[in-house]
Amino acid sequence: MPDDGLTSVDAVALRRFLDGDNALVRAHVRAVLARPEFAKPAAAPPTDRYREQVTERARTLAATGGPALLFPPEFGGLGRVGAAITAFETLAHSDLSLLVKCGVQFGLFGGAVHHLGTRKHHEAYLAKIASLELPGCFAMSETGHGSNVQRVETTATWDGDAGGFVIETPSESARKDYIGNAARDGRMAAVFCQLLVGEISRGVHALLVPIRGEDGSPANGVEIADCGEKLGLNGVDNGRLAFHGVRVDRDALLDRYAEVTEDGEYRSPIENENRRFFTMLGTLVQGRVSVGGAAISATKSALTIAIRHGARRRQFGPPDSDSELALLDFRVHQRRLLPPLAMTYALHFAQHGVVAELDRIFGSLGEGEDEAERDRRELETRAAGLKAIATWHATETIQTCREACGGAGYMSQNRLGELKADTDVFTTFEGDNTILLQLVAKSLLTGYRGEFEELGPVATAGFVASQAWETVVERSAGRELIQRLTDDLVPGRERDQDLLDREYQLGLFRWREEHVLSGAARRLRRGLGNGADPFAVFNDCQDHVLVAARAHVHREILESFCQAVDRTDDDALVDVLDRLCDLYALSELERERAWFQEHGRISSTRAKMVTRTVNDLCAELRPHAEELVDAFGIPDALLAAPIALPGGEASRTSSADLGDELPDVRAILEEVGEKVPS
Amino acid sequence: MPDDGLTSVDAVALRRFLDGDNALVRAHVRAVLARPEFAKPAAAPPTDRYREQVTERARTLAATGGPALLFPPEFGGLGRVGAAITAFETLAHSDLSLLVKCGVQFGLFGGAVHHLGTRKHHEAYLAKIASLELPGCFAMSETGHGSNVQRVETTATWDGDAGGFVIETPSESARKDYIGNAARDGRMAAVFCQLLVGEISRGVHALLVPIRGEDGSPANGVEIADCGEKLGLNGVDNGRLAFHGVRVDRDALLDRYAEVTEDGEYRSPIENENRRFFTMLGTLVQGRVSVGGAAISATKSALTIAIRHGARRRQFGPPDSDSELALLDFRVHQRRLLPPLAMTYALHFAQHGVVAELDRIFGSLGEGEDEAERDRRELETRAAGLKAIATWHATETIQTCREACGGAGYMSQNRLGELKADTDVFTTFEGDNTILLQLVAKSLLTGYRGEFEELGPVATAGFVASQAWETVVERSAGRELIQRLTDDLVPGRERDQDLLDREYQLGLFRWREEHVLSGAARRLRRGLGNGADPFAVFNDCQDHVLVAARAHVHREILESFCQAVDRTDDDALVDVLDRLCDLYALSELERERAWFQEHGRISSTRAKMVTRTVNDLCAELRPHAEELVDAFGIPDALLAAPIALPGGEASRTSSADLGDELPDVRAILEEVGEKVPS
Repeated sequence: MPDDGLTSVDAVALRRFLDGDNALVRAHVRAVLARPEFAKPAAAPPTDRYREQVTERARTLAATGGPALLFPPEFGGLGRVGAAITAFETLAHSDLSLLVKCGVQFGLFGGAVHHLGTRKHHEAYLAKIASLELPGCFAMSETGHGSNVQRVETTATWDGDAGGFVIETPSESARKDYIGNAARDGRMAAVFCQLLVGEISRGVHALLVPIRGEDGSPANGVEIADCGEKLGLNGVDNGRLAFHGVRVDRDALLDRYAEVTEDGEYRSPIENENRRFFTMLGTLVQGRVSVGGAAISATKSALTIAIRHGARRRQFGPPDSDSELALLDFRVHQRRLLPPLAMTYALHFAQHGVVAELDRIFGSLGEGEDEAERDRRELETRAAGLKAIATWHATETIQTCREACGGAGYMSQNRLGELKADTDVFTTFEGDNTILLQLVAKSLLTGYRGEFEELGPVATAGFVASQAWETVVERSAGRELIQRLTDDLVPGRERDQDLLDREYQLGLFRWREEHVLSGAARRLRRGLGNGADPFAVFNDCQDHVLVAARAHVHREILESFCQAVDRTDDDALVDVLDRLCDLYALSELERERAWFQEHGRISSTRAKMVTRTVNDLCAELRPHAEELVDAFGIPDALLAAPIALPGGEASRTSSADLGDELPDVRAILEEVGEKVPS
Repeated sequence: MPDDGLTSVDAVALRRFLDGDNALVRAHVRAVLARPEFAKPAAAPPTDRYREQVTERARTLAATGGPALLFPPEFGGLGRVGAAITAFETLAHSDLSLLVKCGVQFGLFGGAVHHLGTRKHHEAYLAKIASLELPGCFAMSETGHGSNVQRVETTATWDGDAGGFVIETPSESARKDYIGNAARDGRMAAVFCQLLVGEISRGVHALLVPIRGEDGSPANGVEIADCGEKLGLNGVDNGRLAFHGVRVDRDALLDRYAEVTEDGEYRSPIENENRRFFTMLGTLVQGRVSVGGAAISATKSALTIAIRHGARRRQFGPPDSDSELALLDFRVHQRRLLPPLAMTYALHFAQHGVVAELDRIFGSLGEGEDEAERDRRELETRAAGLKAIATWHATETIQTCREACGGAGYMSQNRLGELKADTDVFTTFEGDNTILLQLVAKSLLTGYRGEFEELGPVATAGFVASQAWETVVERSAGRELIQRLTDDLVPGRERDQDLLDREYQLGLFRWREEHVLSGAARRLRRGLGNGADPFAVFNDCQDHVLVAARAHVHREILESFCQAVDRTDDDALVDVLDRLCDLYALSELERERAWFQEHGRISSTRAKMVTRTVNDLCAELRPHAEELVDAFGIPDALLAAPIALPGGEASRTSSADLGDELPDVRAILEEVGEKVPS
């Protein structure tokens, strides 16, 4: 164990640092959610009642102005996308059905109208969406196409005589499926269809289609089924939509990237169909950023519960003593919980970076039209990679927390079951993680060039092969970097390297990324050079490509952590963050130490030392584990698990303490001297 | 890819082989469960109704004679413990709440009466337990003591004047907690208490305590609370019991291992208190064997669903084609599902071996008193290790299956959510997996000698240190084996070794076990030799000790698989089993390849070749994946998941097809010419 152990951790200072720029928005959401309106029922209500409750609560949230943060001021919004995502992250400490319901309404449905529509749509709908006056759906996935959404089968056919479109579901597999807000509440849906104009297919476009009338019954020609019970998130009314000759007028087309004129002429500023599709998808990046953030928050909730329990629960001890030891004093228990805790800190900072970039690109100016395309592609890639890694981390860590709490963890009141069930689909929705990591790898292999978007998923292999080698190996600093790393990292010299040296850690992460990536490029080029079937070549490299994506995302995460440490000059904070960063970096090296040995980058002696150092870091952080989760700032009222609360009970703020008025987010912005649109 | 690919797999022949000796019992249980009495409701019923339904179904099962298999013929049983465990495994393809309810009643409560009680208890209760006339509980865990059950706080105090015992719950933490069958149905409980006779504490003993009267209301002095909703298994009525001066008579003590005479004299054939406790616990080994088997069955259900879906579901394909590819044609999808499939086969055979051994020791003779103590210890160790590895495998694999089925996997109707939730606690109950692996390691480190049972968990470290080095390294064939392995396995010679050579694989598994174990022994000895605090030494080695246990269990699993292959002379079966065995062995080597490199046992080149060979084996088995899950023989009516069924629907046998009579397991035994006790 290092000699200069941490003496203390100031949880409040650490929380302020984690809260960062949007501390006031976080405080606002915490205060709102701790009110009695959001009290957790003693038992999960039956599905019908649960859905009703979630809808009511979403309306209450809408009334606080939170959703308005997402939309441009000229349409009743507040134009603060970064703050909106942060508010959403904080909401994820509460009921995750409520979170997903809000995500569907404000983020997905609202986001489609905002980013794919134009002024006429914004004027007509954005304010009503933010207030939940117009509940809506984001109808992209179909029964037969969840991941390959470019192949959805629903059609929108231009009818020149009527001056509008006809929406049709041609088969069972073309039903819009798992659509949130569809089974009970949605009045309108952004429906993704193959657009047919004059017999010509123009690819996937979104149209606004009313699905229910004022009385709540399905609109003419719209068939709505309930998806029924799910593994989790049963407060969200997922449904299945089918359209039988449903007519909408010309304005229904969300026409930022393509329009059909009154004369039935199709026009788009983006000629290539694939590129147009990926551009449209790209504007929806905030959904992925939001899911990643929510996953990190849920992980924090689970870790707070399990670590507090582990510090209090005693079991086993010296045979001749009456005292037993806290679970967290056992090495295996530290090993289970503290590396995931360090990684959760790392993900927090990586998420912070992605939100800041999203805010910069899509922020208060609203549109980001003028931003360089490359910046947007990089953001999409970062968001996709971080979403995949953060949601898998959530699934694994929450499971570990459940097991670490034993039988108590299996009781519903301690919330780990709910966290498990509700977050489970995060690895699937807003892009299946495996598919997302492939997208990340493709972006890297083509140097964020847009051309691969012009190709179908398999033909991409051919393009990637033609670009990848040069892209990866000869990228500006590439060769130089690899040369330097090769010199520094050979095992023969490693005795001079301190495992806790950040530059050394970064060097290993970077070298791995470059090496795996260039190896994948080589394999693709070699495979296609031999004239093999592109699919076979691509499939053969698929596992390699995913390793490359993972290596890339972890390098980004480590760099984000380092940048976070650099942002503070409070020595005490630097101390604790440094240890956490070490634990993250070395746990990741430990996990990948087979690879590093296989590639001659670390010796077997060094590999064993990595494991020992992880043990030492766990022991060093263990006395501060409770402060490290306290710093996540999750109010007891939201945490709610008796095993994690002093005395086993949460005190929920009574409305008397806070006055009758729900706080409004506009007041928060005014408090920090921001100009708030009226 | 090897040239001699498998041409076909005969699912029926393979199923017959997997069914093994107890094929008829499996067929019987499958037929019973496919009847309308066990139809899966469209939606999960509310908890009250669900509990009621589970109780009704358990009674129906009792009427088929299945539970009688567990008990000795002279008390109305059939004396077939191996068949009973096999029936239980098959039941695990059905509702897992029903399974656990039966496990609590017949296995745990019945097992305590059977194995800890004597003739008077057997005569009074076993038949009533098997018929469910007397619903009962196994009340061991307490709020404060789930794992360290030797420290339970409930007391049973001998009252000489009354000639009986007084049961008392001295504190909140002493409440019996998470007790199945307690909240609704249980009439009696086997309560584990600290026995106090004449002011002397005699350690933990079990007593039969009535907890409810005929009318179902709590007995005098018994306080019963409902544990409420759980993450899963909500058809089981878990409750919390507290005892306030509850009086029971002298016969209430289950007195096989200790009695209190009428004169108030305490007598036990086992002098040492720790050893007595572990001997009592040891007789309950069938519970762990049952949970391991149930976990394997649930894993088979999940894999059947995910693999059928993966073979049918198409997504993505060549850009200029209308066809898309089956998910299972993608390497990453093969990688997710096929190594766990191979491991599930491996676990099936390991479980088969443990059940056979259990049957031999506790089988038709009923008691096994005459068996060598060492055999029983070895069985306990095997059961503990296999339970831990099989239940973790279930948790991981079912999660993977859920993700591999995407959004469809998240819908309740496809059953993966239920399988996830219901099996989750398997890693915790019947012994927390981490604790179980420590027990395994301690048994190995002391050569199955009983002495460590005489010590408390921490003091064990001292004993282990004094024994372990000699035990492990100098055990009969030890040195010789290590010498041979060292000669054969040095990386310099590995070019001559075929990764698919079974002896080479076995050599690596064995070498790893021996090496990790002797390393742990060395560390313990060195630590204590330096006069350090035994807890600190033990804790410092805890991760090492767990690695040793895992290595041991995997070596046993591989050997079981090899023995299974040796049992058949059907060449076609040998072919497919060989490939599965290769895939299991190499997937495990791949997972542990960092360790093998660190210890100089495989070169980096060989390590990379392991990964490539796993890929090749996946590709080779992929065309047969559906047959490999068909061979698990899970009736469609039990599988029930629409995504796994032809046409999306299960045909359930109607009662008309089978006649009105429920089949009786006695008829099955008669059919194979067994003498059935009347």
